[in-house]
Amino acid sequence: MKISVLGCGRWGSFHAWYADRLGHETLLWGRPGSARLEALRATRHNDYLDLPPSVTLTDDLTTALSGCDLCIIAISAQQLRAFAGDLKRTGVSLAMPFVLCMKGLEIGSGKRLTTVMREVLGPRVRVAVWVGPGHVQDFVQGMPNCMLMASEDGTLTRQLVAALDGPLIRFYYGRDLLGIEVGAAAKNVMGIAAGMLDGLHLSSLKGSLMARGTHELSVLIAALGGDAQTVYGLSHLGDYEATLFSAHSHNRRFGEDFILGRAFDKLAEGVYTTKALLDLSAQVGVELPITRAIQAIVAEDADPRQELEKLFLRATKTE
Amino acid sequence: MKISVLGCGRWGSFHAWYADRLGHETLLWGRPGSARLEALRATRHNDYLDLPPSVTLTDDLTTALSGCDLCIIAISAQQLRAFAGDLKRTGVSLAMPFVLCMKGLEIGSGKRLTTVMREVLGPRVRVAVWVGPGHVQDFVQGMPNCMLMASEDGTLTRQLVAALDGPLIRFYYGRDLLGIEVGAAAKNVMGIAAGMLDGLHLSSLKGSLMARGTHELSVLIAALGGDAQTVYGLSHLGDYEATLFSAHSHNRRFGEDFILGRAFDKLAEGVYTTKALLDLSAQVGVELPITRAIQAIVAEDADPRQELEKLFLRATKTE
Repeated sequence: MKISVLGCGRWGSFHAWYADRLGHETLLWGRPGSARLEALRATRHNDYLDLPPSVTLTDDLTTALSGCDLCIIAISAQQLRAFAGDLKRTGVSLAMPFVLCMKGLEIGSGKRLTTVMREVLGPRVRVAVWVGPGHVQDFVQGMPNCMLMASEDGTLTRQLVAALDGPLIRFYYGRDLLGIEVGAAAKNVMGIAAGMLDGLHLSSLKGSLMARGTHELSVLIAALGGDAQTVYGLSHLGDYEATLFSAHSHNRRFGEDFILGRAFDKLAEGVYTTKALLDLSAQVGVELPITRAIQAIVAEDADPRQELEKLFLRATKTE
Repeated sequence: MKISVLGCGRWGSFHAWYADRLGHETLLWGRPGSARLEALRATRHNDYLDLPPSVTLTDDLTTALSGCDLCIIAISAQQLRAFAGDLKRTGVSLAMPFVLCMKGLEIGSGKRLTTVMREVLGPRVRVAVWVGPGHVQDFVQGMPNCMLMASEDGTLTRQLVAALDGPLIRFYYGRDLLGIEVGAAAKNVMGIAAGMLDGLHLSSLKGSLMARGTHELSVLIAALGGDAQTVYGLSHLGDYEATLFSAHSHNRRFGEDFILGRAFDKLAEGVYTTKALLDLSAQVGVELPITRAIQAIVAEDADPRQELEKLFLRATKTE
């Protein structure tokens, strides 16, 4: 199968590495002038992996889209709307399935990424999401994981899994696309909260965070029309190991760095997701205490210790 | 309040330390001839904490029970039936509330610990459980946590929380005693599984373990007449941080040592619970794939890697 991967950062380069390993004819696209692409061209190597020579590199979107059977997108979630416009403007037929590998919600609207794709490319675009646990650093060392493929079209989901399943990544079929997208995005918010607890030497409260975090999102997803149980699957709870406990997690690290006053290169995706989740929850009148506290700390200068202790350690409550 | 703590191991000594810290008149009991009790008598110190002189030490059960307002029990779960008989044989009135701090199920019968107490001491015994996350090592360093108090009598639960709540341990009131006891015991089984994954360099699968482990217990608890949601609270999921990820967890450590062929002093409580859960699940015809795999590995000489990979990495499934 001809697979194009759009986006050549950590995850994009991994997806190309992985598709190539499965024997697909693989192309990896990066933006014209992208330093990451140039580095891969020069060395076939980045901080995470060595890219085999069989992976074609390009910065031309028309080339990347033409004749490909499957298109994997791994860019920043907040850039997706503009990027989908770029795809449309190439004029290439976009009948191939798109698989989104980012975890996020559109800031301002709170919209899911598959919704953004449909709004820009029309209701007939074939789009799926590939989410769940796993770190690039672990995969390239041969450590396997279970992940989740989901779309609104069961046949499409099965075709994608057939093309991408292997001993390194064992896919589960997801059913509740809404719950999966919201939950996958929201785990980054819990990752920031976990990092803040680590930074405050309150790591033991990550247990309570797991119990309460899943609960608040379960309520939100049910209110949005999704399945209240979805957050307890691979897309959200199943990703907590990788997000709340791993040194590799950008969002956990961001939370810890924030507390310790260490500089960070850029905002973690979970910062945008925090805001987007609050937008979304306001639309359906649901309270998200943990998400609200993270927003207060990150964006409103609230005291982290006070906010987090208030969440977990104030009043006695019924579970 | 006069509080007696029965059992002077890691948790018993902590409960005495904690009750004393809250200002209660505290007595700590250990078996006659107990080496741990002798060490505490000689040094007021064990591997975990320093016991203030205000805590009375005794090996006399009649002294421990006489006139106490609240009795906390922290012994091995499998010894509870015999120990409850010992309590009865003292002839002291047992009208005070008992709080059980162990996590386990009776091997052979699969019975809950509050059931064992009722069977031995009669249906009118006032008994509650104190479960949830937290390590002695963290508490004595001032790291707070949320825990759970539950009984079948809401008034009793509230009295106990009023007596034992404080800034170091913030209690939640539990409602579903059945689900709480089964879930609290079962988290030790998931702890063993987590340790085995660590030992096999498959730690990344602990995310899937969290998602699938909670699910299988949720089904069991619902079949037993409890609430399917209880496992997602503090008694089970909320205890995963302390059990699946902490170096302090005996059960996780047991699983890791088992894989690495390192000697261990004694079986972890989760080994008994594994067997007891299978006894229990057979009574209601529920499959427990993870628990079954742990039993096969620990008791039936099955290959750990094969069993665990089969669980997580074999067939593609719908979530």
